[in-house]
Amino acid sequence: MEFHEERLSNGLQIIAEKSPGVHSVALGFFVRTGARDESDEVSGVSHFLEHMAFKGTARHSADDVNRVFDEVGAKYNASTSEEVTLFYAAILPEYLPETFDLLADIIRPALRQDDFDVEKKVILEEIGMYDDQPTYTAYENLMQTHFAGHPLGRSVLGTNESIGALQCEQMRSYHRQRYAAGNIVLAVAGKFDWPDVLKLAHQHCDSWPAGGGARPRVAARPQGGLKLVTRTSSLQQHVMQMAPAPSADDARRYAADIVSVIVGDDTGSRLFWELVDPGHAETAEVAYNEFDGSGAYMAYFSCAPDQTRPNIERVGAIFDDINRIGVTDVELAQARSKVASRIVLRSERPMGRLSSLGHNWVHRNEYRRVEDDLETLRTINLADIRELLDAYPLRQLTTSTVGPLESL
Amino acid sequence: MEFHEERLSNGLQIIAEKSPGVHSVALGFFVRTGARDESDEVSGVSHFLEHMAFKGTARHSADDVNRVFDEVGAKYNASTSEEVTLFYAAILPEYLPETFDLLADIIRPALRQDDFDVEKKVILEEIGMYDDQPTYTAYENLMQTHFAGHPLGRSVLGTNESIGALQCEQMRSYHRQRYAAGNIVLAVAGKFDWPDVLKLAHQHCDSWPAGGGARPRVAARPQGGLKLVTRTSSLQQHVMQMAPAPSADDARRYAADIVSVIVGDDTGSRLFWELVDPGHAETAEVAYNEFDGSGAYMAYFSCAPDQTRPNIERVGAIFDDINRIGVTDVELAQARSKVASRIVLRSERPMGRLSSLGHNWVHRNEYRRVEDDLETLRTINLADIRELLDAYPLRQLTTSTVGPLESL
Repeated sequence: MEFHEERLSNGLQIIAEKSPGVHSVALGFFVRTGARDESDEVSGVSHFLEHMAFKGTARHSADDVNRVFDEVGAKYNASTSEEVTLFYAAILPEYLPETFDLLADIIRPALRQDDFDVEKKVILEEIGMYDDQPTYTAYENLMQTHFAGHPLGRSVLGTNESIGALQCEQMRSYHRQRYAAGNIVLAVAGKFDWPDVLKLAHQHCDSWPAGGGARPRVAARPQGGLKLVTRTSSLQQHVMQMAPAPSADDARRYAADIVSVIVGDDTGSRLFWELVDPGHAETAEVAYNEFDGSGAYMAYFSCAPDQTRPNIERVGAIFDDINRIGVTDVELAQARSKVASRIVLRSERPMGRLSSLGHNWVHRNEYRRVEDDLETLRTINLADIRELLDAYPLRQLTTSTVGPLESL
Repeated sequence: MEFHEERLSNGLQIIAEKSPGVHSVALGFFVRTGARDESDEVSGVSHFLEHMAFKGTARHSADDVNRVFDEVGAKYNASTSEEVTLFYAAILPEYLPETFDLLADIIRPALRQDDFDVEKKVILEEIGMYDDQPTYTAYENLMQTHFAGHPLGRSVLGTNESIGALQCEQMRSYHRQRYAAGNIVLAVAGKFDWPDVLKLAHQHCDSWPAGGGARPRVAARPQGGLKLVTRTSSLQQHVMQMAPAPSADDARRYAADIVSVIVGDDTGSRLFWELVDPGHAETAEVAYNEFDGSGAYMAYFSCAPDQTRPNIERVGAIFDDINRIGVTDVELAQARSKVASRIVLRSERPMGRLSSLGHNWVHRNEYRRVEDDLETLRTINLADIRELLDAYPLRQLTTSTVGPLESL
């Protein structure tokens, strides 16, 4: 492994990890902007803007964008979360120049009024489609309730109202502000020559406007609560619960990840054996989500409506037991194996490695090799788990549910 | 790259490709058996048997199987096609011994009557579920019509009748016959020590019964035809068409693959630009499928019912044009880039490499490095495409369709 780091004079951060033995290269622009950086008036603009990147630029028509990616055989996509908008592609190294050119170009899209109007309809359809999914509604309500009054409670897609009222000029202004070079991390992973990457970055990104900086990191103070939506078209009851956990810059995040695997991995976890395997629930999982300045455990299960109450109690009993007694040596060892396997399997392709590389930098300005993560994982012991659970116990603080039930 | 090859005295073939720089290992047992090796009485037994592998053995209960795979963080699965039943897992190298033990054990399952009866219900449900999918019905009918009277026309899942009537003793007999060691290829890819692999193979596979051998490779003589199923619950009309193409051991398969990409890749192909982009069809693709002793081009499109006839004509016109005039230099160059990218990106993980490694051996007793495939690809020229199209023109020989239409 060979790691390189550089900052252009406008503030664009470039990080690159060269891997021996791989045959492709992945590159991604991680823009430090997402739903949490929006205001009520422009709710959903980050995600809408991500779509607009594929609608053309001054130099590339929308057709060009797809054609060029296609001709070089790129695997490419984009995504928007509460905190990051990401544009990425994986290709053979010989296509790096044209792919870099295109990817750098599309994140400064033309934002033409016509394209904006057409794409607005697509976004509204997407919102309508997601609104039909009980798990989407449950997640939206969970985040809104848990992070009430905090930017993390904002919706990534926005609403029919906010998107319907959004003006193209508002998007242009948001873009000017949030896509400043200092807000962007370019990550490269796989097979490449560092001087070439640097040259391409100068060529295509030197002209980007400077500016940007850290977002305010006000800690969330979740008060909890219940949000219930009765939807008889859903046969199952969907239940999501959330509680505070370590934030993205907290070293205890590794222990939180381990605990989430022990309690709620999709197979072989406590929830699996006590809810799914006996047939009490269709699915039951716990995940650990890290954000800037905040973190959350998120539990989810779906089941026959009449099993909802008993399952909430079962989950509560499992949480209590772990908070009180902790986890066993055997559980810890198994969870370490699982997590280690996932880290390694995920990182084998430049495309997978890119994600860790970029997110580590975006959240922590930190470079960590796969070996560093594996080493940290190896050192997590029962005392670390104990310390985590004392500071951040598993709880059913905030509940969001969608399904046939009229009350819980 | 380092390649190893060995045959146990019972006939089990072992092949292994060691890759520098990867951190995991993938292993798979490729059993040379599938739907084409069945008789009417046991239609679907190969796929049913694949399921039974996860129902336990003399040494592992069904719960054990899932638990052990889960504890080592394995990515594992199995699949059944017309020609191959595959069981595979990818893991960290330190878990090779227990994963090898388990994978080798489950392909000699207990085949208990109780488990058989329970799993039969699961298979019948699976058949029912697939029968609801227009594309599944269209594919089944396409293969049956195109390969009428030839073993490749057999259904992988079987039918309600064949599975309903199947006896556990018939499955045991099929297993004895088809899972003989000489019919199995063990492939290993990624990070491993060859002496360890060999020792594990001796330990776990030496006791397997010898026997097995090549299946009869009678060439198919497709006569073509039309099979139409009217299904008003489907809003779209689904159309599949098939014509002969080079077989798995024919060097022209590379040219056939290139032609299928130029004509019918899911983006940027002739079908894409003439059917999908203008909105005449929802989806339109051509694939090249290789089998032992036979091969096929398969075209598929779905569209509004009233566009069916015009689309069949559009596809016919594209085929005629390519058969007559061939493809352009630019098309050939672009298709080469696409295929090269896919080969490389797919092969970067041991899991992806395993598939090429095993299928090359199963079809051709041949080892090819990624570089060999890339080199062959580079040499394909317009004359090769011409020769292919003269021997195997694109045709609409056999047609299968499912949708609202009552006639074509």
